[in-house]
Amino acid sequence: MLCGGAGTRLWPLSRRARPKQLLPLATERSLLDDTLRRCEPFGDPVLIGADAQRFLLQEAVRRAGRTVRLLAEPTGRNTAAAAAVAALDVQARLPGSLVLLVPADHRIDDADAFRRAVLEGAPAAREGRIVVFGVRPTSPHTGYGWIEGEPGAGVRPVRRFVEKPDSDAARAYLAAGLTWNAGIFLFAPEVLLAELERLEPGLLVAVREAWAAGTDDGRTVRLDAAAWSQVPSIAVDVAVMERTPLAAVVPVEMGWTDLGSFGALREASPLDPAGNALRGDAVQLDSQGCYLHGEDILVAGVGLEGLVVVGTPDAVLVAPLDRAGEVKELVEALGPRDEVEEHPRAERPWGRYRVVDRGEGFQVKRLVVTPGECLSLQRHAHRDEHWIVVGGVGKVEVDGEVRSLAVGDHVLVRAGQAHRLENVGGVDLHLVEVQVGPYLGEDDIERLEDVYGRGNGD
Amino acid sequence: MLCGGAGTRLWPLSRRARPKQLLPLATERSLLDDTLRRCEPFGDPVLIGADAQRFLLQEAVRRAGRTVRLLAEPTGRNTAAAAAVAALDVQARLPGSLVLLVPADHRIDDADAFRRAVLEGAPAAREGRIVVFGVRPTSPHTGYGWIEGEPGAGVRPVRRFVEKPDSDAARAYLAAGLTWNAGIFLFAPEVLLAELERLEPGLLVAVREAWAAGTDDGRTVRLDAAAWSQVPSIAVDVAVMERTPLAAVVPVEMGWTDLGSFGALREASPLDPAGNALRGDAVQLDSQGCYLHGEDILVAGVGLEGLVVVGTPDAVLVAPLDRAGEVKELVEALGPRDEVEEHPRAERPWGRYRVVDRGEGFQVKRLVVTPGECLSLQRHAHRDEHWIVVGGVGKVEVDGEVRSLAVGDHVLVRAGQAHRLENVGGVDLHLVEVQVGPYLGEDDIERLEDVYGRGNGD
Repeated sequence: MLCGGAGTRLWPLSRRARPKQLLPLATERSLLDDTLRRCEPFGDPVLIGADAQRFLLQEAVRRAGRTVRLLAEPTGRNTAAAAAVAALDVQARLPGSLVLLVPADHRIDDADAFRRAVLEGAPAAREGRIVVFGVRPTSPHTGYGWIEGEPGAGVRPVRRFVEKPDSDAARAYLAAGLTWNAGIFLFAPEVLLAELERLEPGLLVAVREAWAAGTDDGRTVRLDAAAWSQVPSIAVDVAVMERTPLAAVVPVEMGWTDLGSFGALREASPLDPAGNALRGDAVQLDSQGCYLHGEDILVAGVGLEGLVVVGTPDAVLVAPLDRAGEVKELVEALGPRDEVEEHPRAERPWGRYRVVDRGEGFQVKRLVVTPGECLSLQRHAHRDEHWIVVGGVGKVEVDGEVRSLAVGDHVLVRAGQAHRLENVGGVDLHLVEVQVGPYLGEDDIERLEDVYGRGNGD
Repeated sequence: MLCGGAGTRLWPLSRRARPKQLLPLATERSLLDDTLRRCEPFGDPVLIGADAQRFLLQEAVRRAGRTVRLLAEPTGRNTAAAAAVAALDVQARLPGSLVLLVPADHRIDDADAFRRAVLEGAPAAREGRIVVFGVRPTSPHTGYGWIEGEPGAGVRPVRRFVEKPDSDAARAYLAAGLTWNAGIFLFAPEVLLAELERLEPGLLVAVREAWAAGTDDGRTVRLDAAAWSQVPSIAVDVAVMERTPLAAVVPVEMGWTDLGSFGALREASPLDPAGNALRGDAVQLDSQGCYLHGEDILVAGVGLEGLVVVGTPDAVLVAPLDRAGEVKELVEALGPRDEVEEHPRAERPWGRYRVVDRGEGFQVKRLVVTPGECLSLQRHAHRDEHWIVVGGVGKVEVDGEVRSLAVGDHVLVRAGQAHRLENVGGVDLHLVEVQVGPYLGEDDIERLEDVYGRGNGD
C-alpha cells in the first residue's frame, strides 16, 4: 500500500501530520482504513511510506484494528522504488506470493468488483505477466493516464500506455474503449525485479542496498538513507510498464477516483442542483459548480462559480477549482508554519483530540476518550497537565493513586508523574487539557505501559 | 452618535454582539472610539443605539475611557426617528445647544478638517439652517448620495439631494462639483423639530411619546416600546433634508469613507501592486483586486479576482466584492446561529477574552487581563469556573480568601462563590477559563463591586 503522500494537494484538509490517506474522504473511515478493508482477503498488508510519518501510519493502522509491516522511506522516491522495495521484501519473507501494489489514498466504491478483478488477474500474474487494472472511463478525463489493451475480453496484453492526453485525444480514447490507469498493479516479485534489472539496473542496485542496509524490528523496516538517496525518482509506469512486453490489463468497473485534487473531490461528492458539493458546515447562495467544505467551522459563499473553499479552524483556502493544482506551490510558499505541518485534529487508538488554543508555554486540547478505552501509563518530562472533565465519567491514576472522575472535576499531573486515564462509562469522556511547560511537543511522552503496544514518541 | 448598526454587512467580521462600530477598522481603536475622540471638542456625547446592545455600547464607551448618555431604541427605526429623539433629549437637557448628528461607524482620516467644517457650519445652524456636510468626491461613486449646493464658497444653501446615481450621472456630478452626502448633520434641535412637525407630524408625535414614556436612569434612556413601534422607519434625508428649504451644505475634504461594504474596506486599505488588500494573516498567489482578511486564522488564496475572503476561527465568508451587499441576505438565511449572534472575541474594560471551545454544558475561554486591571467582585449562579494561569502573575480572591497566582496555578471557583481577579504584574495575565454548568450565558453575573461601575448583566 503506497502511503507516501505528503499532504499538500488537499491542504488545508490534509497536512504533513495528517496526509490525505488518513482523511475520511470516501466513508466515515480514513482512506487507508478503507484500503485495508478492501484488501483484507489478499493477506497481510505492507505499507510503504515516509520514515518521518512512521508513527503516524502505524497509529492509523492500529486505530483501524490492524497490524502491518511498514517499509519506511527516508525520502519520497516515486513508485518504481516503492514497487521494487515491496517486491524485495515480499520475495524474502513470503516466497511464492504475488504483490498487489495499491495506492492507499484512492476511493473505490465497489470493493467486490475490485476483488473480483484482482482474482481475475492473478493467474496471468502467476504466469509472469505484470498486471495493471484499467478502470472503465466515465468521461474523457485529461488528468489520468490511459491504457490501450489488445482487442478481446478479460485479461489481455497491453498495447500501449498514454500519459494525460489533451481533450480531443481523451474523447477518442473514450470512444475506442481505452481504460484509465488506476495505478494498481499485480505481479510476482521476481518478474518485476527481473524487468527492473533489465530496464533500470541502477535503481534496483540502490534499492537493494537501502533495503539490505536498513534496520528491521519486524514491524518497521527503516531503509538506509545513504543508499536510498542514490535511488532515481521515477514512476513504475515509466520505468517498467511503458517498456515491458509483459504488461497485461484487467478492465474493471468499480467506482474509482484518485481524489487527487479538490476537483476530483467535488466530482466524487453528492452535488446540489447547481453542481455545488457542500461538505461539513457549508452554506451557499446563488453559487455554481463549487466545492465548499467547512471542517469544524462555518463556510459561507455567495455568488461563487467554480471555486474551492475549504475552511478549518486555523486555515482557509480559496482557489478556482481548475487551479487547485497550484495549492502545492502555495503550501511551499507558506513555508514551515504550524498550519502546514500540524492539524488541529488528531485520532488516537483511545479516541481523538483537537488543539483549541496555544501560545507561548501553553497549549489547550479537548480530549475525547471512547468508552472502555484507556490512554497509556505515561509521563512527561517538560510539562504539567491540567485536566478538567466536561463530559462523561472516567478513572485516573497519578503516581499509583487512583480516583474516579466526573463532570467538573480537576486533575493536575505534574511533570515526571506517571499517569493513566480511562473512560469507565458508556459515553464519550470529554476533557479539557491545559498543558503548561517550556516544551509541548507530542514526542515528550515516556510510555510505561500501553494497551495498544506503543513505544515512546509513538 | 448613530450606533444602530446590526452588524450584518461586514459579517463574519461583525456580529450582532460585535457590530461594525466596535471593530478597529480604521485605527487600532474601534470606529466608535475614533468617533468619540473626533467629536471630543463638541461636548458630551449621546449615543443612539439598539436597546438590546445597551450594555455592549456602554461597555465599549467605558473601555474608551468615556461616559455617555445612551438613547436606547427598542427596534431600529432609521435616522429620522434617531434625529428626532436626539433633538428632544438635547433640547430638554441642554437648552441652547446644537445637535451634531454623526454615524459612529465611518472612517475620517483628517479629524482636524472635520472639526473645522463643523465650526464653519455652526453659525448657519445657529441662524436656523439644517447643515449637512458634503465630502469632496474622489471618484464617480454610485453607492453614495450626492448633494448639489448653490454656487459659491463655504456654507451655502442646498439646491438638491440625489440618491445613489447611475455611473453616467455620477461622472457628471463629479465634473459639476457636487459632493457626497456623509450623513453628518448639524442643527438647532428646535429647528429640526419644527420641520418634522411640519413634514412628518405623525413621526414626531410617536417619537415624543416614546421618549416621554421611556425610563431614564440618567445614563440610559430606554424608549417606550409600544409608542416606538408606531414610529415610521424613514431616513432623515428623505423625511426632512430633501424637502426643507433650510438645508445648507459645508463642503469638506477629510478622507471620509462609510466603510459600508467589503468593497469600501478594500478601498480604504493599503493595496499590493495587484490591488489586493491583505489584512491580518492573509496570503495570496497570483490574485487581483481582492480583499483577504484572516482574523486569528490563516487565509490563503490562489488565482482569485475581485473576491472578498474573510476568515475568523468560527466562520468564513467568500463572495465577489461587487456582490458583497448580499452578505446581509446570507446572514438572514443562516438564521439564529452562534456564528451570527456571537463573536469569539470580546473586549472588556479589564482586557479581553476569546471563546476557544464550547460544547454541551461547558465553554473554554482565554482571558487576558491588562496590567493593573481587575475584574469585578462577582458570582455566578449556574456555573463553576476553573482558571489555569498560562502567562503573567495575578491575585485572586474567592469568598474573601486572597492568594497569589503564577503560571501553572489552578483556581476553582464554585457556583455561588464571590470572586475577583486582578493582574498585579507588569505584563498581560493570561488564563484559560473552563466554565462548567447547565447555563453559561454572559448574563449569569451578579456584580458585588466593580471598579468600572458596572451593574448586573452589564
